[in-house]
Order: sequence, then structure tokens, then C-alpha cells
Amino acid sequence: MSDCIFCEIVAGRAPASIVFQDDRCCAFMDIQPVNPGHVLIVPVVHVAFLDDLDEETGAYLFTVAQRLSRALRRSGVHCEGVNFFLADGEAAGQEVFHVHLHVFPRFRNDGFGLRMRPDYGVLSARSDLDALAATIHAKL
Amino acid sequence: MSDCIFCEIVAGRAPASIVFQDDRCCAFMDIQPVNPGHVLIVPVVHVAFLDDLDEETGAYLFTVAQRLSRALRRSGVHCEGVNFFLADGEAAGQEVFHVHLHVFPRFRNDGFGLRMRPDYGVLSARSDLDALAATIHAKL
Repeated sequence: MSDCIFCEIVAGRAPASIVFQDDRCCAFMDIQPVNPGHVLIVPVVHVAFLDDLDEETGAYLFTVAQRLSRALRRSGVHCEGVNFFLADGEAAGQEVFHVHLHVFPRFRNDGFGLRMRPDYGVLSARSDLDALAATIHAKL
Repeated sequence: MSDCIFCEIVAGRAPASIVFQDDRCCAFMDIQPVNPGHVLIVPVVHVAFLDDLDEETGAYLFTVAQRLSRALRRSGVHCEGVNFFLADGEAAGQEVFHVHLHVFPRFRNDGFGLRMRPDYGVLSARSDLDALAATIHAKL
């Protein structure tokens, strides 16, 4: 037994509606969907944060998400568009500390969206953006 | 000249603050950031939708996003967490029709979040989730 619910699901010890599973990742239905058809994709290995996830597995999560979004659009689920969403760290809204990539089916006027901070919308000064780009680039 | 702003940025014909560029992808600062340090990652080749994006390039976008999120956390940018976000299709909030993966730096009480539909929060019935999983699996 693990105290990680996603590890329990991957191991088949917790109930889940599995869409896809192989030796590297597992995709299953979110029990509290943003919209019907909301899927979570997790690495089979327990990894809490992006920083601990090997790049190959990360890349593969995206591949599975691409395949799932195509499948969603063809499945009859109400799906006119798709969002991918990932939260890394509590400050980013992560609630289960096992890396997971969300795939949300979307449709017009579904009520879902991004809630922006009050001062959102102001265009940044180019000089500020250049400085940020240089700062981030230096840490790559 | 292209009428795609991201193609213009990739080609160096539109102003942008580039964080990273190689022959497959380009990462630059969002001019209207969700939070300071918000980066966009795009394929160099013009591809409007996920369905047209080859899987290798898609996977590589995720790898670059992982590297950028590590760099952001080390850069001095206010970053206690990170979100990845991708909108595919107008109904999903896509505004520029050249695939792009967002990386948002996040911090506690930054004012950003997900806006859920009014009836969000109800747990789905297992039988409904099983039916959805089977329907989506069948189209993989």
C-alpha cells in the first residue's frame, strides 16, 4: 500500500476508470471532472514534482495527451477543443503530489476558464521582457 | 511575411524576447503575462492545431517546458510553482493559431486560478466514468 492515491490507481488497488496504461504511464478519468471526459495522465513511477521527472517520461506524457485529445474529439464526448494543464507545486494548485497532466475537453460556453489576477492585461515593456528572457536563459 | 505572429517571431521579423531557440522550437516571453516570467514555447514550423503537430515535436515542447520551469525556479523570478497550459481550438481559448505551450510561474496568492463551471465539484459516478473511459479508449 502506498499513501499516494495515483500509485494505488496505477497498481490497480484503488478504483479507477483506466483509458490507457503501459509500462511508462497511465491515463484515467478524473473523478471530479472540469468537464465530462476529463482525463489525467500520470507516470507509472512515483514522482512528486516535474524536477524529479526524467525528460523521456515527461515527453511521453505529452505524446499520450496528444493521442487522448484526438481520441476525445472522435469519441462522441462533447469536445470542440482541448486544454492541457499541469500544476507543479502547491503554489501552482497541485493537490496530489504525483506528477499529472490534465486533458480537459472543452466546448463553447462550458463555463470553464482562466481566472486572471486583477491587473492582468497590461502589456509588458520590451526592456523588462528582454531582461527576464536573459535571466531565465542564463539558468537553462 | 506571414500573417502568423508566432511565425514572424520565429523568423526574427517581429520583436520578441527570446529565451531559447533551436531548429525545432522557440521559447519567448509572453507580452501580456499571467505573471512576470510567463513563457510561450512554439514549434518552429507553423502548425495551427495539436492534431497537425508531429508527436516528436510535441514531446520536445514538453521537454523544453520542463527545462524552462527549472530555469524559472532558479532565475530569481517570483516562482514557487509552475503551470503548463495549452489551448487547442477556439472553444478551448486558443487565440493564436500556431500551437503554443504556456509556462506560468506561480506564487502563493498571485490571483491566478482556474474558473470552474457552476456545477463543478460533484463526484462522477463510477459507471459513468467507466463508460467514458471505454468510449475514449476505443478511439485511441
